[in-house]
Amino acid sequence: WRSRGKLQIFQYQVLKWVLALLVGVVVGLVGFFSNIAVENIAGFKLLLTGDLMLQNRYLAAFELYIGCNAVLAAAAAALCAYVAPAAAGSGIPEVKAYLNGIDAHSILAPSTLLVKILGSVLGVSAGFVLGKEGPMVHTGSCVASLLAQGGSRKYGLTWNWIRYFKNDLDRRDLITCGAAAGVAAAFRAPVGGVLFALEEVTSWWRSALLWRTFSTTAVATMVLHALITYCRGGHCGLFGKGGLIMFDLSSRQATYTATDLAAVVLLAVLGGLLGALFNFLVDRVLRAYSIVNEKGACYKIVLTVTISVITSCCTFGLPWLTACTPCPPELASKCPTIGRSGNFKNFQCPPGQYNALASLFFNTNDDAIRNLFSAGYDREFGVSTLLTFFTTVYTLGLLTYGVAVPSGLFIPVILSGASFGRLAGTLLGSVSGLDPGLFALLGAAAFLGGTMRMTVSVCVILLELTNDLLLLPLIMLVLLIAKTVADCFNKGVYEQIVRMKGLPYLEVHAEPCTRSLVAGDVVSGPLVTFSSVERVGTVVHTLRSTGHNGFPVIEDPPFAPAPELCGLVLRSHLLVLLQGRIFTSDRVKTGAAEVFRRLAPFDFAKAGSGKGIKVDDLDLTEEEMDMYMDLHPITNRSPYTVVENMSLAKAAVLFRGLGLRHMCVLPRTQGRPPVVGILTRHDFMPQYIRGLYPNVLPR
Amino acid sequence: WRSRGKLQIFQYQVLKWVLALLVGVVVGLVGFFSNIAVENIAGFKLLLTGDLMLQNRYLAAFELYIGCNAVLAAAAAALCAYVAPAAAGSGIPEVKAYLNGIDAHSILAPSTLLVKILGSVLGVSAGFVLGKEGPMVHTGSCVASLLAQGGSRKYGLTWNWIRYFKNDLDRRDLITCGAAAGVAAAFRAPVGGVLFALEEVTSWWRSALLWRTFSTTAVATMVLHALITYCRGGHCGLFGKGGLIMFDLSSRQATYTATDLAAVVLLAVLGGLLGALFNFLVDRVLRAYSIVNEKGACYKIVLTVTISVITSCCTFGLPWLTACTPCPPELASKCPTIGRSGNFKNFQCPPGQYNALASLFFNTNDDAIRNLFSAGYDREFGVSTLLTFFTTVYTLGLLTYGVAVPSGLFIPVILSGASFGRLAGTLLGSVSGLDPGLFALLGAAAFLGGTMRMTVSVCVILLELTNDLLLLPLIMLVLLIAKTVADCFNKGVYEQIVRMKGLPYLEVHAEPCTRSLVAGDVVSGPLVTFSSVERVGTVVHTLRSTGHNGFPVIEDPPFAPAPELCGLVLRSHLLVLLQGRIFTSDRVKTGAAEVFRRLAPFDFAKAGSGKGIKVDDLDLTEEEMDMYMDLHPITNRSPYTVVENMSLAKAAVLFRGLGLRHMCVLPRTQGRPPVVGILTRHDFMPQYIRGLYPNVLPR
Repeated sequence: WRSRGKLQIFQYQVLKWVLALLVGVVVGLVGFFSNIAVENIAGFKLLLTGDLMLQNRYLAAFELYIGCNAVLAAAAAALCAYVAPAAAGSGIPEVKAYLNGIDAHSILAPSTLLVKILGSVLGVSAGFVLGKEGPMVHTGSCVASLLAQGGSRKYGLTWNWIRYFKNDLDRRDLITCGAAAGVAAAFRAPVGGVLFALEEVTSWWRSALLWRTFSTTAVATMVLHALITYCRGGHCGLFGKGGLIMFDLSSRQATYTATDLAAVVLLAVLGGLLGALFNFLVDRVLRAYSIVNEKGACYKIVLTVTISVITSCCTFGLPWLTACTPCPPELASKCPTIGRSGNFKNFQCPPGQYNALASLFFNTNDDAIRNLFSAGYDREFGVSTLLTFFTTVYTLGLLTYGVAVPSGLFIPVILSGASFGRLAGTLLGSVSGLDPGLFALLGAAAFLGGTMRMTVSVCVILLELTNDLLLLPLIMLVLLIAKTVADCFNKGVYEQIVRMKGLPYLEVHAEPCTRSLVAGDVVSGPLVTFSSVERVGTVVHTLRSTGHNGFPVIEDPPFAPAPELCGLVLRSHLLVLLQGRIFTSDRVKTGAAEVFRRLAPFDFAKAGSGKGIKVDDLDLTEEEMDMYMDLHPITNRSPYTVVENMSLAKAAVLFRGLGLRHMCVLPRTQGRPPVVGILTRHDFMPQYIRGLYPNVLPR
Repeated sequence: WRSRGKLQIFQYQVLKWVLALLVGVVVGLVGFFSNIAVENIAGFKLLLTGDLMLQNRYLAAFELYIGCNAVLAAAAAALCAYVAPAAAGSGIPEVKAYLNGIDAHSILAPSTLLVKILGSVLGVSAGFVLGKEGPMVHTGSCVASLLAQGGSRKYGLTWNWIRYFKNDLDRRDLITCGAAAGVAAAFRAPVGGVLFALEEVTSWWRSALLWRTFSTTAVATMVLHALITYCRGGHCGLFGKGGLIMFDLSSRQATYTATDLAAVVLLAVLGGLLGALFNFLVDRVLRAYSIVNEKGACYKIVLTVTISVITSCCTFGLPWLTACTPCPPELASKCPTIGRSGNFKNFQCPPGQYNALASLFFNTNDDAIRNLFSAGYDREFGVSTLLTFFTTVYTLGLLTYGVAVPSGLFIPVILSGASFGRLAGTLLGSVSGLDPGLFALLGAAAFLGGTMRMTVSVCVILLELTNDLLLLPLIMLVLLIAKTVADCFNKGVYEQIVRMKGLPYLEVHAEPCTRSLVAGDVVSGPLVTFSSVERVGTVVHTLRSTGHNGFPVIEDPPFAPAPELCGLVLRSHLLVLLQGRIFTSDRVKTGAAEVFRRLAPFDFAKAGSGKGIKVDDLDLTEEEMDMYMDLHPITNRSPYTVVENMSLAKAAVLFRGLGLRHMCVLPRTQGRPPVVGILTRHDFMPQYIRGLYPNVLPR
């Protein structure tokens, strides 16, 4: 199926574009609807509570609040625990691992998609300190995967015309587009989405992909834009200014003095330190939680509800400790906001006053961020308010990630960064003339740089959120410093999670220990090869007894004068050939014509996750087991090879650079078998190498 | 030198960062000074002419104008023709080719750098329809190359501590940073610079590079920002609002109707068509000019001056054909601008009126673009004015690129695109409610998409220039349509120039004709190999008689039981060993210890362009010629290899993907020499393959 006609190539190109744009449309729609759902559920909950507060029925309000949160949290946790455990957490590490070539089970399954969307809506509405941005990336990838597979056979939704895309390359491309569209839909940041996919998610990048992801994110953003414009007309329930964080800071000054710069540098260093600390603590919390979570689904739900209760107590209880602030007289019409969402929450205060801490806690996370970034009212939040909020959010953010709910890390990090930045800005007010709202933005940038270690994409996302390019130099400076500081301590939070999950992630740089080894050193275990025309029984037995996915095929006499390497055959292709029962009673070549007369090329296309043929499903008679099958038509005649004395580091560069799954190792000297081994992803993992050669090089 | 200590690695890292930031600082400074120079020279010229015009001495004004332009043009052409011919043209195709692995001579030499800066300033001041943006990219790359080489030995500027970076990888990284910084300094667009480097310039991209280029562009932009802030105080002569195009369109509306969208789509389609036509015509003009330019330096200067005179006649003559327009009464203080640069040029008109065409022609290109983008005064430019300007600029842009002056393509394309867009906007004014200034911006986007075929980077550059992210959806739509339309006809303008110059550029996708061939098919000519301990005379003779840069080394008996491949040795390393005279009288291994006792590892580091040892410089006695040299210490023991029956397309993917220069081809069957050939970049060129196999596959 490599020699397709022009029409087919054209059809393929058009389909690929249509799919990419379709991914954009669907992700845009999903982003919009999950937003509306959150705004309405959370808004309704806050309104009800607020009404009870106005009637001075504080205990009832608290019960209602904590109850709503716990029920929503339990529902989200139950979905995650029983339906799709893969939907818990951010999902970005999993997508990152998938695009690195790790086909982990059920990560992009339709059930995961459904639970991710619903669980994320429920989780955010439950008032947890978590975001829906990370889950949106996972959702986008799931949507793309589903479309690329041509629907799900399990649920009876299949489109045959998409079987063109049943290969790794096209699927990876589309999933990259989906991840980019997820960011674009979450932040309304199309360029930021592309850069996020480039910087954080993908392991391979082609310039054609830049254009394709860009169009996908563009479509997603346009769909979102159109729907939001429609909602501005008041057709979408409680949907206010839009749950998508978006602040217009264009009134900010663009000049700054040397002391301003010093203050910003200090902020960036502290942000980097706190970000690195966050990563360290998240790792510990995740390890602790995983012990609880492994005990069963019930434990997961109990843990989630516990955290929900703690969160509710903090957000409802802490504002009582704050004194009421009189409203600024010039804002009498807006302050306090009673019976609707807004900047100045009345809470327990008498009319004409507002509770600053409640304005932050007693809101959706998006609104809290918008409040922190707001400029102009310098004294809106006092030092104690900000300090309380920062500590609480930082701690709750740590405790929340890891419970069995789809939970993004962007929002907790932005929230704590912004409150920290605003705190610093308020404290440094006498030294620096910059606005506390600008400090909040820079604080968020510092925390993002310190935890996620992304630079360009975070910078662009923040720019797209704030719509002011004059802030660019300051944001860049903060990001660079924070990342540099944090890199001295540990790795980025997503890489850390990938590593903690034990996924065999191939790093860009080969491990130092591979430098002093050669490829032949790590080839181990008995090598299983097939002859180019092999007995059916041998093939079936081998497939049953080993878990390998690729087997070298040796051309033996009489087909060649001496044994030589014919190529590499994949387990999935062998299974298709076995199922097709294309056997001969003698040891002769069948030829490709015979195979493709009986089987269509698409039968060999890569099946969707968990949908391939199993070797145990085959039902072959004793007679058939003694027949022969010709492997020539399904053998890849040009596998990538290395000589056994090739430096392992260079072999790793080749393996990673071309995105291979199998690599044949050839002998160096003549007169030996034509292939000495096969290298797979696991052979390059540092744990494996260190297991073989404990003393090769200390870390 | 692969086993460096921790301290050295740290030193290397710090140095690499310092260099990257230094590149940013230098490029920022260069960008600023070339800007100031242009503003002052061109401004002075225009002021003098304007003064004469005010005195009604029109002929004298014309003589002065045409004379100034011709002298400036001749100076620029003379510099290019006599000092550094490589400095002519945009420079982006050359940088692109260099980063693809083509070490063309003198492209990044110090003389090229100097001529590029000076010539660009002179050329832009001479009033040509060309930009300084493309040359800035080349300048940035030259600066980076110069710093990476540790100065120039020819001019006595060398720093020994930078010899760490004398290898291809580090040099490519730094040059990528330089190119990105060039765009950043030219447009004040740091993110756009990074994306430009990613999308258009580099062939290999690592995610570490993203961060590094980003910091370089950030530094360049900050330097520029600081200096411009200083200049705002009036310390920089005629430096006005800054020659760097920057317009604030934030007053634009963000809503648009379906008819607006239809108008925009039409604009994008036409822009794509005209862009493709531009590419086609540029190719023809370049071919015609190259005949003239090849005749000698004088011809180059004559051609340049001819084009300069034509340009001067157009820009001075055409405004006379336009009727004067009365100034809008509300702008009496600003219109007409007399005796200074500004929006409404008085030209031949009586006081209180202005000449619309002169406002575009009789300005620097940057000011003309700013005028075209200006919003608010809908009727500022009439249809006939815009049509005249568009046709003239489109034609002059075509004629100017290719003369022996550093000339960027951004400005001509933006100029014609903006005038075309404003023309379309004025014509469609009854249908669409969008501002003509916005149409001008979209027209520029359409032309950029149609000629350069960049999407994300152009989009971001335009956003950074306009500082309004609400325009994003429209710009993206226009870019996508224009690129798609233009891609139906031909390739992007830079790729076209690379191809026209005959540079062996490796495309991302393997040529279709390589699919039906195997690696062994294109290996041709007698293979030259060395024995692992070889006679000095043989080595010298081989180096003299062939031009190859890499030679396989064969381990012969008695060092191995049978001949086997030892590795690959480079010409430059052989020359170092020959110059070091590390010979033995018998055929024995010297060992690496002996070699590195006499030669430092840095002696083998890659020399700067044109600075390596020549084989004719060696002065070896007859006696020495009969001695032996041990090639083991300088042999690369792990060359990348393919088996001879590997598909050529897959070999090309490997070659391109890992950025190789040589690849050994191994025999498939045993009992033959251990290596059957070497593949280099030229073996993958479609011209070469089609020369060998004319009937392999029609294009």
